Amino acid sequence: MITSTTNTRVRDIRSLQRRKERDSRGLAYVEGIRTVLGALESDWGDVALLIVAPDLLKSDRALKGIAEAEKRGIERLDISAEVFKTLSNRDGPQGLSAVVRQRWTSLRSLELEDGDTWVALTAVADPGNLGTILRTADGAGASGIILLENSTDPWAHSAMRASTGAIFSRHLVRAEWPTFLAWAREQTVTLVGAADDAETPYRGANYGARTILLLGSEREGLSTEQREACDQLVAIPMRGQVDSLNLGVAASLVLYEILDQREASSVSDSADSLDVLAVTDVPEVAEVSE
Amino acid sequence: MITSTTNTRVRDIRSLQRRKERDSRGLAYVEGIRTVLGALESDWGDVALLIVAPDLLKSDRALKGIAEAEKRGIERLDISAEVFKTLSNRDGPQGLSAVVRQRWTSLRSLELEDGDTWVALTAVADPGNLGTILRTADGAGASGIILLENSTDPWAHSAMRASTGAIFSRHLVRAEWPTFLAWAREQTVTLVGAADDAETPYRGANYGARTILLLGSEREGLSTEQREACDQLVAIPMRGQVDSLNLGVAASLVLYEILDQREASSVSDSADSLDVLAVTDVPEVAEVSE
Repeated sequence: MITSTTNTRVRDIRSLQRRKERDSRGLAYVEGIRTVLGALESDWGDVALLIVAPDLLKSDRALKGIAEAEKRGIERLDISAEVFKTLSNRDGPQGLSAVVRQRWTSLRSLELEDGDTWVALTAVADPGNLGTILRTADGAGASGIILLENSTDPWAHSAMRASTGAIFSRHLVRAEWPTFLAWAREQTVTLVGAADDAETPYRGANYGARTILLLGSEREGLSTEQREACDQLVAIPMRGQVDSLNLGVAASLVLYEILDQREASSVSDSADSLDVLAVTDVPEVAEVSE
Repeated sequence: MITSTTNTRVRDIRSLQRRKERDSRGLAYVEGIRTVLGALESDWGDVALLIVAPDLLKSDRALKGIAEAEKRGIERLDISAEVFKTLSNRDGPQGLSAVVRQRWTSLRSLELEDGDTWVALTAVADPGNLGTILRTADGAGASGIILLENSTDPWAHSAMRASTGAIFSRHLVRAEWPTFLAWAREQTVTLVGAADDAETPYRGANYGARTILLLGSEREGLSTEQREACDQLVAIPMRGQVDSLNLGVAASLVLYEILDQREASSVSDSADSLDVLAVTDVPEVAEVSE
């Protein structure tokens, strides 16, 4: 068991608090029983190392999960409670954390299908907002998030924590704006931008069959070029004195409107089929195919 | 100009970072040009003291606002940039902050009318969530927030910052649960709880004419007693792998659904009136009342 806070491996793990280190090594540090077990259980969680403080970790469920992971060949590192606390980002550390390999989906490999919804974020600054949008994307059945320009890091602790596990369930893509736009045109998506001053309300707007919701940064919103690239701009009504909603809230309102339209249209598709059946002459004895 | 960080008045202001001090003195410390000017311009912002660091404050708009406030008799305290930084909660302090008197609406004084929407929060823990809900309540035209049980303080810096000024535009009420419930029954409100396992989807649910949306804490949700007190429980569909949405997001989805229903019903009310007119025999020359 490692008991020194200056141990090389401990310093190595601690360095993942810096984005530059995370980016260059393609790793991230995740913490907490729920999050680490979530990563182990998810198809997309790619755990490189489990970090255990036996003096802190009392959960049977966690110990069982660790034992199973070790059988699968995942390395385990035991450290003292004191050392664990120097790595921890939270009060009341639970004694379980992990180093995971970052997972990125390449834009080139992405082929959209009808019914798919994605979010594209330009220069999102707040990791909590990014994590919240990941969480809502999961809830609303959107496929993932495309990060454009200088967005904050989804693999930062606070973004992962706000995602409540959606970091391991949604696609993450990085792209430059021109590359993204060329790809979106090829995929014949409807690019929908959210803008305070748009004339079309987000409710009842046309989102098309394959949708990418484009959101600007918290401070600046979308650039003129980005607005012009959109097939549709939608606004959320503001009935009080504040100018705009929180970015995560705005994304969520539109994502749930898209979900509602998709599900309403699949219900009405079924209803249409029933109508067709109802007016069709049905033979008294149905033919049965062999 | 005060240049000592241990000056009595500076220590006095600094003590407002602690909730206990804010609660007992009924004051709060707000920071930033936009927020302070918002408080000065709002009917509900009650500024007790302006704190200015002349070396940091360069905005003409801010200087003009301060001059006007001084004419109205609001006290101004000048401090050095160095002292200002010891009070500041943010990077790049702008040199303007204020002490405001907390504003609370008493439950007893509240009379609800048809079309009113309120949010009641039980034991909300995260100041950012509370501020976000204030912001969305403003956007969606809800009247205010009723804080039940041990909720976090809306007058904490991070809650006020997340509210982007809505702290000065929405009613804030504090109440114990039994008092609240008795009051709600008297007001014949529809008490709608949000619960993951409710059978009724939040879209299309019946919210009644006077609505209070009741939300539980981030970790626990609503208690059994609270659920049973609700006239209606609604759920937000979850189509992915996470269990629930961020509290601020969940509140926002339901508040905007209520707004949409209210506005759709006022449109259809107008449409109904037109229909009535259309089928009524209208005399060729209308009678004019004198």
